[in-house]
Amino acid sequence: MSLSIRNQLPGTVSSVTPGEVMATVKVRLDGGQEITAAVTQEAVQDLGLTTGSSVRALVKSTEVSLATGPVDGVSIRNQLPGTVTDVTTGGAMARVKVEVAGGELTSAITKDAALELGLAAGSQVVALVKSTEVSLSNA
Amino acid sequence: MSLSIRNQLPGTVSSVTPGEVMATVKVRLDGGQEITAAVTQEAVQDLGLTTGSSVRALVKSTEVSLATGPVDGVSIRNQLPGTVTDVTTGGAMARVKVEVAGGELTSAITKDAALELGLAAGSQVVALVKSTEVSLSNA
Amino acid sequence: MSLSIRNQLPGTVSSVTPGEVMATVKVRLDGGQEITAAVTQEAVQDLGLTTGSSVRALVKSTEVSLATGPVDGVSIRNQLPGTVTDVTTGGAMARVKVEVAGGELTSAITKDAALELGLAAGSQVVALVKSTEVSLSNA
Repeated sequence: MSLSIRNQLPGTVSSVTPGEVMATVKVRLDGGQEITAAVTQEAVQDLGLTTGSSVRALVKSTEVSLATGPVDGVSIRNQLPGTVTDVTTGGAMARVKVEVAGGELTSAITKDAALELGLAAGSQVVALVKSTEVSLSNA
Repeated sequence: MSLSIRNQLPGTVSSVTPGEVMATVKVRLDGGQEITAAVTQEAVQDLGLTTGSSVRALVKSTEVSLATGPVDGVSIRNQLPGTVTDVTTGGAMARVKVEVAGGELTSAITKDAALELGLAAGSQVVALVKSTEVSLSNA
Repeated sequence: MSLSIRNQLPGTVSSVTPGEVMATVKVRLDGGQEITAAVTQEAVQDLGLTTGSSVRALVKSTEVSLATGPVDGVSIRNQLPGTVTDVTTGGAMARVKVEVAGGELTSAITKDAALELGLAAGSQVVALVKSTEVSLSNA
């Protein structure tokens, strides 16, 4: 089975905070970064997620924003520093590949954003992903 | 009101699980599939959603991922099997039309993903949508 | 039609940049801010969007991030300054109401994020929304 979801980062669950409907799951990625996923409580139960579970954090390319440096004072939980390896632009959108510790990320942003940030191979960036955009799978 | 949101699937609410902030609403689509939406508790109240309510499940094309088969052990609640009817590619992105029971879905994924999965008219796929990406409207 | 989508901001299309698959549409909101939506080219055609079209920009609460000030050097196109009017927390998530020029926004973020940012009624914030998360409707 192949998935269109470009970003699949392996890691280990470090904590699960249950709510009535949603839960936040923290995952220590194999690359060393910590990532937070906000998923349904039902999904946590179905997947049997507990501290120590091996998982993959899945993020669709269209959910990955890029910044030219770390961003403070923001609700976005996930910030993964990396280096741009490739930029491909279309009429409206751009696809940016970013090498991060432990893997590679694909980001789909507007062409305008890619131009304004001056993104090219070698650019240092921080990939930003809102917790509600992170899915999890059993590894 | 016309919406840019490409995917609008009619159905009937089968359950509502309230939380303080978020609620999960299960909808039995007219095509027979079950879909889960994670929306604000406030929206549930404003729309007066209860078991039996007629609704439309709304999903933006950029929120629809595709897999070449069913995916086990994943937090993504919504999996709709279907058949690709058309693939249009641009410089960075691809738009894939998928016929599912009860309707048609549009998915916007990276061109890379469409190529890697070998998607073409006739491909069997499963459309994946995270619950937090499903909005609801009164039918 | 009532929508679960909490954020519906009226405005006027100021430009449309077509791509093969996606298009970027800039909208001047009635509150004076400019917002960018990345929608399918097909949606632009179906809705007949051109410069001057009256539209509503629709954003699901789970797609609105918050920062304690403007963020530079980021691909996220949409930054709307405002003032927090209410914070409601659940077990995992928080719902934050933000008054912006021309309307009110609802943001669903993790409880952790709300606590770390010290969000309370009166807090000055900037709402961040990725272009791919903005849908449009005819007004």
